[in-house]
Amino acid sequence: MKISVYPGTFDPITNGHIDIIERASELFDKVIVTVAVNSAKTPMFTLEERKEMISESLHSHKNIEVDSFNGLVVDFAREKNATAIIRGLRAISDFEYEFQMALMNRKLAPDVKTVFLMPNEKYTYLNSTIIRELARMKCDVSEFVAPCVQKKLRTKFG
Amino acid sequence: MKISVYPGTFDPITNGHIDIIERASELFDKVIVTVAVNSAKTPMFTLEERKEMISESLHSHKNIEVDSFNGLVVDFAREKNATAIIRGLRAISDFEYEFQMALMNRKLAPDVKTVFLMPNEKYTYLNSTIIRELARMKCDVSEFVAPCVQKKLRTKFG
Amino acid sequence: MKISVYPGTFDPITNGHIDIIERASELFDKVIVTVAVNSAKTPMFTLEERKEMISESLHSHKNIEVDSFNGLVVDFAREKNATAIIRGLRAISDFEYEFQMALMNRKLAPDVKTVFLMPNEKYTYLNSTIIRELARMKCDVSEFVAPCVQKKLRTKFG
Amino acid sequence: MKISVYPGTFDPITNGHIDIIERASELFDKVIVTVAVNSAKTPMFTLEERKEMISESLHSHKNIEVDSFNGLVVDFAREKNATAIIRGLRAISDFEYEFQMALMNRKLAPDVKTVFLMPNEKYTYLNSTIIRELARMKCDVSEFVAPCVQKKLRTKFG
Amino acid sequence: MKISVYPGTFDPITNGHIDIIERASELFDKVIVTVAVNSAKTPMFTLEERKEMISESLHSHKNIEVDSFNGLVVDFAREKNATAIIRGLRAISDFEYEFQMALMNRKLAPDVKTVFLMPNEKYTYLNSTIIRELARMKCDVSEFVAPCVQKKLRTKFG
Amino acid sequence: MKISVYPGTFDPITNGHIDIIERASELFDKVIVTVAVNSAKTPMFTLEERKEMISESLHSHKNIEVDSFNGLVVDFAREKNATAIIRGLRAISDFEYEFQMALMNRKLAPDVKTVFLMPNEKYTYLNSTIIRELARMKCDVSEFVAPCVQKKLRTKFG
Repeated sequence: MKISVYPGTFDPITNGHIDIIERASELFDKVIVTVAVNSAKTPMFTLEERKEMISESLHSHKNIEVDSFNGLVVDFAREKNATAIIRGLRAISDFEYEFQMALMNRKLAPDVKTVFLMPNEKYTYLNSTIIRELARMKCDVSEFVAPCVQKKLRTKFG
Repeated sequence: MKISVYPGTFDPITNGHIDIIERASELFDKVIVTVAVNSAKTPMFTLEERKEMISESLHSHKNIEVDSFNGLVVDFAREKNATAIIRGLRAISDFEYEFQMALMNRKLAPDVKTVFLMPNEKYTYLNSTIIRELARMKCDVSEFVAPCVQKKLRTKFG
Repeated sequence: MKISVYPGTFDPITNGHIDIIERASELFDKVIVTVAVNSAKTPMFTLEERKEMISESLHSHKNIEVDSFNGLVVDFAREKNATAIIRGLRAISDFEYEFQMALMNRKLAPDVKTVFLMPNEKYTYLNSTIIRELARMKCDVSEFVAPCVQKKLRTKFG
Repeated sequence: MKISVYPGTFDPITNGHIDIIERASELFDKVIVTVAVNSAKTPMFTLEERKEMISESLHSHKNIEVDSFNGLVVDFAREKNATAIIRGLRAISDFEYEFQMALMNRKLAPDVKTVFLMPNEKYTYLNSTIIRELARMKCDVSEFVAPCVQKKLRTKFG
Repeated sequence: MKISVYPGTFDPITNGHIDIIERASELFDKVIVTVAVNSAKTPMFTLEERKEMISESLHSHKNIEVDSFNGLVVDFAREKNATAIIRGLRAISDFEYEFQMALMNRKLAPDVKTVFLMPNEKYTYLNSTIIRELARMKCDVSEFVAPCVQKKLRTKFG
Repeated sequence: MKISVYPGTFDPITNGHIDIIERASELFDKVIVTVAVNSAKTPMFTLEERKEMISESLHSHKNIEVDSFNGLVVDFAREKNATAIIRGLRAISDFEYEFQMALMNRKLAPDVKTVFLMPNEKYTYLNSTIIRELARMKCDVSEFVAPCVQKKLRTKFG
């Protein structure tokens, strides 16, 4: 069984993330979407909230699991017997950062491969920061996130 | 069975290509390395020579096949029941061209996914054009290509 | 009256070009779409065919003219009393080339401004070369060009 | 009447901004330079100071207004009947960020167009952060900002 | 005597920095590695610790000096009679920032030249932030930094 | 004595090249400007014409020599006891190509270092292709090339 992990902050999960996860789920037997517990960033949503939004947004997919990790993603991948780390590539700015991470991860764990997938071009402009900003200004974000995320954002910003 | 295709001109195959193919062969059940028959470019090696060099360079791998195609790579992929097209990403210049191709291919065949893999950083500078140029100047290319390719290049340039 | 010129090879005009022209036509009182007669490139379509396809693709717009020029685009712009040259920016690779041209044009004619517009992201992957290639392989290009262009391509490739 | 808005933080306005505004003022009947009131950043100068420096730096231009906005720039543009948002493009790093913003703004308000202008190449290296840094070290900034800004910076840093 | 300065934060010095310094030391008669005292960043190591690690990592090289500066690097360079500022270029993201700095420095001090060197491709992914992060997670960093730095990091993170 | 070589096609030499050569001549004891004899490109000017234009454009500099090479630039550098290859970096597009060449050259000759210098920003848009194009259209190129080059171009295009 070919297993892959898709790490991220998912604060919150967007339709761009979902697009990548769906593609990965057709390439691998199992995809583990895993939330990075990074003490350096203060997320808007708690770890539990983020995992819940991921689970709800993806509940119709059978070969997807939701998890979280603390430390190196390659250690998490090995522990789960995953052979691939999935990353979305939207733009040049992603590219360089992702390349540095992928090269470092290969150095640390040569057996785990980084696999880059490209989201639909309509998600090029989309990221969690913009979603939080739009929600803060009470803009409609229904085109960019799943209904459950929209609801959580509305609760957050009143 | 998860099948992927890795298209290219392979004029000739380099260690950078082999690095990508080996990674792909660990992620998929079968990898079909397929030579693009493109009337617009005049390759140095014939189609038969190129296929032969690929086969010899990769003879120790069991789940790799060598083939060729004429027309759209997505049509070839569908015909072979492949769910993924493998592409190597070495640098920004690759990135943009590859993105355009991947977006167009998705438009033409949404069921076939483009999967980007990153070669070892030591192959960043490597491509078939540089190899042909070095061989033409009778430089040693043993670090960059398989022995069978080195031999063919030596025959070509005397 | 604010006049702008939109220069290009238009071999043939695509929906990406049309998207840019429509945006420009809402910003300026007149847009002159002008075909570059460049002896260095051998276009697939004659100058007359290209102008005809542009005119037909844009016949419903009132403030658009179709013309051609030989020499420097800034000389053409000045002759037409245009204050702006319109250029589409799709990707990084465009960016650098366009920047060099814009800087040189400013040097040659400081009174003519280069104005960059961004096509819809769904046209990121689109250019005339890809259209010609798809048509050559007898692929359906109806989503990418106007019906009149599609017809001309079909005639060309039988 | 063709109206455009030029949003920014302007902390403080530099000669690079002025170069863009002057170009825009020749392309549009009116340009509204508008200061973003963004609670996330803590500017060095108050909103009033920044508006004052913009007004003084541009006092010889007749078709320029100075304003401020809170929220989405597309909402501000619509309220002012502007058809265009002006953005300066200096470098690749600008490019990607600006593209994401422009794509998102088009999604939110398709009738408002983002228009990119390129400053003189001698302003490529110039931004407000560098100006503040140079002023902090008591360097001469007379080549980079208007005299009124220079005076304000000198007062700030004693 | 041709003197160059190599400024940086060096928090801590990595093998990528050392690679650049060694190259510079073969091109110039003297290289002054100089630590930027920047009040805006809070480094992990004190100025003294950073200078000490640099000295120890490079103790076998005769034409290298270690120093620090406060203010503009071009002022430091002039004071030391240096004709060149050395900068490493690893990737596109470096490129733009470095270009802006180099252009500004040329403006401020036309007699001091910025010289870009490229580290070995195996250091592309390496920077001080990643080293601190790896050390924080108690990963082995012996391939990326000198033994004295490794020891200091181990002391820091227990 | 520190020697560097500056290779190129110089078809013809522009003020951008001269800017780089002058910088290099202040960093090294000798700079050898060397014309690449590349059978793949058909230059507009003969090798002798190009060398002559370089010599004339730079006649006031004492530590500059003009030469030509056939084959690998690293072999030429070694033969001349040069420790550095000088390359100008103007833009991102240069960057990637130059990086590939520099990495390959390091592989072939680790003792020869590639040194990147940045021309004045006013030469960002300048290259030999644009000069030939402008001259072909009989535009004034006096700001972009030395008088001797201008004269040669005028003779060529009548």
